[in-house]
Amino acid sequence: MKKIKLKDIDTRAPKSLDKQETKEELAKILEGLDELQNLLYAEGKHSILVIIQGMDASGKDGLTRDVFTSMNPQGVNVYSFKEPTQHELAHDFLWRVHQNTPAKGMVQIFNRSHYEDVLVTRVHGMIDDKTARQRMQAINNFEQLLTEHNDTHILKFYLHISPEEQKKRLEERLSEPSKMWKYNANDFKEAKLWDNYMGYYEEIFDKCSDIPWHIIPADQNWYKSYLVAQKLEELLKSLKMKYPGMKK
Amino acid sequence: MKKIKLKDIDTRAPKSLDKQETKEELAKILEGLDELQNLLYAEGKHSILVIIQGMDASGKDGLTRDVFTSMNPQGVNVYSFKEPTQHELAHDFLWRVHQNTPAKGMVQIFNRSHYEDVLVTRVHGMIDDKTARQRMQAINNFEQLLTEHNDTHILKFYLHISPEEQKKRLEERLSEPSKMWKYNANDFKEAKLWDNYMGYYEEIFDKCSDIPWHIIPADQNWYKSYLVAQKLEELLKSLKMKYPGMKK
Repeated sequence: MKKIKLKDIDTRAPKSLDKQETKEELAKILEGLDELQNLLYAEGKHSILVIIQGMDASGKDGLTRDVFTSMNPQGVNVYSFKEPTQHELAHDFLWRVHQNTPAKGMVQIFNRSHYEDVLVTRVHGMIDDKTARQRMQAINNFEQLLTEHNDTHILKFYLHISPEEQKKRLEERLSEPSKMWKYNANDFKEAKLWDNYMGYYEEIFDKCSDIPWHIIPADQNWYKSYLVAQKLEELLKSLKMKYPGMKK
Repeated sequence: MKKIKLKDIDTRAPKSLDKQETKEELAKILEGLDELQNLLYAEGKHSILVIIQGMDASGKDGLTRDVFTSMNPQGVNVYSFKEPTQHELAHDFLWRVHQNTPAKGMVQIFNRSHYEDVLVTRVHGMIDDKTARQRMQAINNFEQLLTEHNDTHILKFYLHISPEEQKKRLEERLSEPSKMWKYNANDFKEAKLWDNYMGYYEEIFDKCSDIPWHIIPADQNWYKSYLVAQKLEELLKSLKMKYPGMKK
């Protein structure tokens, strides 16, 4: 498979795409997702794990809001990975992740994920290359476990924004009262490490590709949400689910 | 490596071994274990996972009592695996196991373990051979994860009793008031499946041997406890642990 080079991938929608039409298309997909998720829950055979990765301000929270509020919250969980606690650090790096994997019938969204353990940790020199490679192998094994042994279908999204768009959004956090709560003193420092992050992301796309990554152009929120909703619909439809009959 | 054939392995101590001397030796080891475990806890670098497998009445509970009560309970946990709940069955088979792996500094004992998921399930035709082999591969990956990513040292014990000794012990459960609570109506039915269990155990010893199995002759409790305590001491001493200095 050809290696993913983020620089070669556009962060915006094709010019030919009409924003209004795409938004209407998205609304239609979301309507259908509600029904498909109900079926997933009722059948209780499969589970869905949606992994959302991306740089600060790439729109991870917004995506969750835009796409997944269309589903019955009883069947959807969101887990936002923060810095691990002392208690979590006393275990292997996948321990806390495993506790949050989806039960059958459920949709689980990871806002950030185990991939941070081979990203932020590398950028800040907390782990060496050898450990990172071992972790990536462990991640492949772990994702295989979920896939083979719990019918978990994993969707991996990278929200691809440009550094310029990121800068604009981070500055908004300083000026717009509704966004200030998101501001973190480290954001601008982290942004300077852009190229390092891109390099480590590309290595992940290469080494953890048994389950493929979807690179989502994310400078425009409407296009990003549309693409993710589409992938989700495609997956759910492919499962050929049926409502179970009466319990015997 | 030569395949383990349980029929070729004695279930009793060598005739030459003196019971009284061995018990005194065991007492000495247990004294030392207390100190070694304190060091493990203080240093907080390694963790120990002790997996105890064996047929019904092979002395798993007794082993836990005899060997591990010598340690500070603050640093030791025992988890007894029962039939999985509906909630647990809605996840992959290692999900509930992962939640009970040891934190750094801790000793975790599994009374039964994830190996039941390729034993009792096979004997009763709940999974097919292909699934069993996939599970054994997943188990190897999982044990590697713990080893590589949390300095978890895994000791795997199979308590090897003879069918005759098992029969004797199961009958005691029917007649001795102190043992009656252990009686389970299925015990004698399960005992009839002895050869099936042995075959699946041998396959486990073969396919899940990255971390080796210790086959412990277990018809005599004193010998069984002595051997396990010795292995545990050997492992703890090999870690070259040191008390950490003052926190900076």
